[in-house]
Order: sequence, then C-alpha cells, then structure tokens
Amino acid sequence: MSVYERLSSLGIKLPAVEPPVAAFVPAVRAGNLIFLSGHIAKRGDGTPWTGKLGADITTEQGKQAAQAVAVDLLATLDAAVGDLNRIHRIVKLMVLVNSTPTFTEQHLVANGASSLIVQVFQDRGAHARCAYGVMQIPLGACVEIDLVAELGDETREGSR
Amino acid sequence: MSVYERLSSLGIKLPAVEPPVAAFVPAVRAGNLIFLSGHIAKRGDGTPWTGKLGADITTEQGKQAAQAVAVDLLATLDAAVGDLNRIHRIVKLMVLVNSTPTFTEQHLVANGASSLIVQVFQDRGAHARCAYGVMQIPLGACVEIDLVAELGDETREGSR
Amino acid sequence: MSVYERLSSLGIKLPAVEPPVAAFVPAVRAGNLIFLSGHIAKRGDGTPWTGKLGADITTEQGKQAAQAVAVDLLATLDAAVGDLNRIHRIVKLMVLVNSTPTFTEQHLVANGASSLIVQVFQDRGAHARCAYGVMQIPLGACVEIDLVAELGDETREGSR
Repeated sequence: MSVYERLSSLGIKLPAVEPPVAAFVPAVRAGNLIFLSGHIAKRGDGTPWTGKLGADITTEQGKQAAQAVAVDLLATLDAAVGDLNRIHRIVKLMVLVNSTPTFTEQHLVANGASSLIVQVFQDRGAHARCAYGVMQIPLGACVEIDLVAELGDETREGSR
Repeated sequence: MSVYERLSSLGIKLPAVEPPVAAFVPAVRAGNLIFLSGHIAKRGDGTPWTGKLGADITTEQGKQAAQAVAVDLLATLDAAVGDLNRIHRIVKLMVLVNSTPTFTEQHLVANGASSLIVQVFQDRGAHARCAYGVMQIPLGACVEIDLVAELGDETREGSR
Repeated sequence: MSVYERLSSLGIKLPAVEPPVAAFVPAVRAGNLIFLSGHIAKRGDGTPWTGKLGADITTEQGKQAAQAVAVDLLATLDAAVGDLNRIHRIVKLMVLVNSTPTFTEQHLVANGASSLIVQVFQDRGAHARCAYGVMQIPLGACVEIDLVAELGDETREGSR
C-alpha cells in the first residue's frame, strides 16, 4: 500500500496548505533533510484549537489535537516533496504542549501525532521525539509540532 | 549586492563574537549544515535584554529584541563560515519568547528576526520556523533564538 | 584513550537502554546525523527525577540531573551506533529545564550535561547548545535533553 492508500484507509484527506502570512516558509529542504515549520493545532474550520492542557483541554482532547496537527504536517510535507512515497524516514518530531504548571502528560498528548505518523509510514515512520510543556503557543493553540524528514537518495529512488 | 552590502544598506554592523563562557561552542558544522547555539537578546551595551512578553515587554519591543538576536546570530554565522555569501540557505529558526501565561503573539515577536534574515539573504533567507512561549530564558532574557543554516556544496561554490 | 576508557576513568557505567513505550524510537539516523529523542532525568533507581528549578530543586541538583541525562543519552547513542568511537562530533544539545517563572540559571543547569559530554568526547564533544526554562516535562521530570550527533564518513572511518 502506498502512503496515500494508507491515508485513505484511515479516512484522512490532506487539507490544502495555506502559506504562512509572514517572512518564513512551511518547509525547507537541505540536502536530503526537510525541515518543517512549527504547525499549530487547528479545528476543522481552520481556526486555532485553543486552550491549556491541565485546565480547559483534557489529555484525550490534546491527543486529538496532536493528530490534527500531524495531518497538517503531512499535507505540508506532501506539498513540499510532491509525493509522500519519496519520504525515506520521518526523522524527528518536536511536540509542544500548552500546559499548566502541574500537567505532566505531554508524552500522552504527543502520542496522538506519533501514532498517526507510524500508521501512515509504518517502519519509515518510526521517529525520534521530544515532547514537553510550554508556557504559550501562537494564537493560544493547545499544541504545536515541528518535524524533520529525510528524502530517499536520488540513486536509491531510481532503484525502487 | 552581497550579503555584506545589504547589511550595510540596512545600517547593520555585525558585533564581535564573544565565545560562550561554558562547555559549548557558538556553532558546529556537520556536513553542509551549521547548527548555532541559542543566542539570548542583549541590549546595545551587551547586557541581557530582560523581561517577559505580556508583562514588562511589549510585542513591538519584543520584535526589536528578536531583530537584535538575529544580528548576533549573523555575526556568529559570519565568524563560523568566514563569508556569509557562502550560505546557501537559512534553514530553520527556533524562536523562544519569554512569556506570561496569556501572551499569544510569539509569532509577531519572531517576525522581528525573520524579516531581517529575509532582507539580508533574500530568497536564500526564506526559512522554516518554530516560535512559542517559554517559562524563562537564561539570565532572564526576553527572547532566545537558535538557527540552522546550509552551506553551498564546494562544487556548487566553484561554479558560482 | 577511547571514549569507553574515558567513561571508565570517570566511573561511569552506561545503563541498559529501555525502549520507549510509545510510537517512537530512541534514535534515528539520517545520513551521517543521528537524532536522539528527548531523555528525561531519572534517579539511580530508574524513576523520574521530578521537581522544578526555582522551587524544590537547586541549581546544583539540576546540574547533577542534567549529567545523569547525559549518561543516558550516551547509552542510547552507544546502542544506536554500536561504538561511541565512531562519533565524529556531538553537534547539538537542547536542554529543557522545568522552571518556575523567576528561575534564570538554565545555562548553569545545562553545564552538568555539557561538561560531561566534553570530558568524554574532548574536541569532538564541543557542541552547540540551546538551554531554556519550560513549563513542564513528561512525568514531572526536572530536566529533559535531546541531542544531535554526527557519525564519521565511512571513508574517513576506514582511514582511522
């Protein structure tokens, strides 16, 4: 199954990518690495998914928000490389959780993104990760995630 | 125009780089990537630019602080590679904003650094970015930024 | 002296690496770079080393916790590459310190990790670093650190 078939079997449709309204870009390639900008959690209508874990957002809701960010990251990655099947490896996720001073389940929130990535990319989706609680996130979003991925070598590509 | 001519036209003079007084270095090259240490905001006299966004620092002041950090990052990059024109791409900025629990304009603060980088490097300055609010920053600084840049290939260099 | 002889002379025994109980892995290699997951501080018995700097953990204790994390990072790196002497460079450390709103000595806490890395790897251990205070860390740990390292080229390896 291709990455797109797996997305489809999970009922996931990648959204259109909105370019950020600022002096930066959604993704930059350097050699075989692709660095994605931090993506904030958004609700289905595109508005920021706001709130703090430990206060007005439960761990389960946080996981759903993290999964929603992962879908947006895949859409950005897709737009950047043209074909998600060219991704050799998801290298690293940094998962920022908008937290109260006593909320300590950032790793569970992050699993909402990690699980989806692994379901979609399988072995190639097994990534390194850093998850922690931050003071705030732009626009008050509850979760923000950035990502590093690796493209296959052109030569390796050719032999597939 | 070279990068230095653009800096000059913006009235920016790169400061001398002070080596950090600890067991780490300002910049490390790995392959064609250069990873810079987090740089904290400093005032013109070299003392930490302290304060919290949402309390004693306005968004506009935060932008100015972020721009000041960008200048210091360029000075470090210049010292590390010897010639800023050799930079093929500014890959990624991570912008940490010392925030109160309710301040949500970290992206606007970060624009102070992003805009300068793009003015100086133009297309090569279009970077990925992650900005968010942190609890504190060493010495109480209001902003801290780290950066990843890419050098051109030696072979590509030769052909320019 | 090999890296292992230096570890031994420092009285450090690398612990067995426990795989994370989640959809991510301790380390991912991409080209010559190795990205390690965030490692949280643990006490000698393997339980999380909890607390906040500025409240119930002193700077000196935080340094010790950061050093303990560095040992765990080296164990993960060892398991990932098979031989720590193959490490060409420790590229970058990101040091997250669980802080109160007024604690501003994150850089001193981070030195506990940085100093050990340099003692063990000497010149190859001189790394870029970003240290700051976060709201919380998974399981309430006082420190979390992630790391990027560079492997030597196969060709360079051969000539050593």
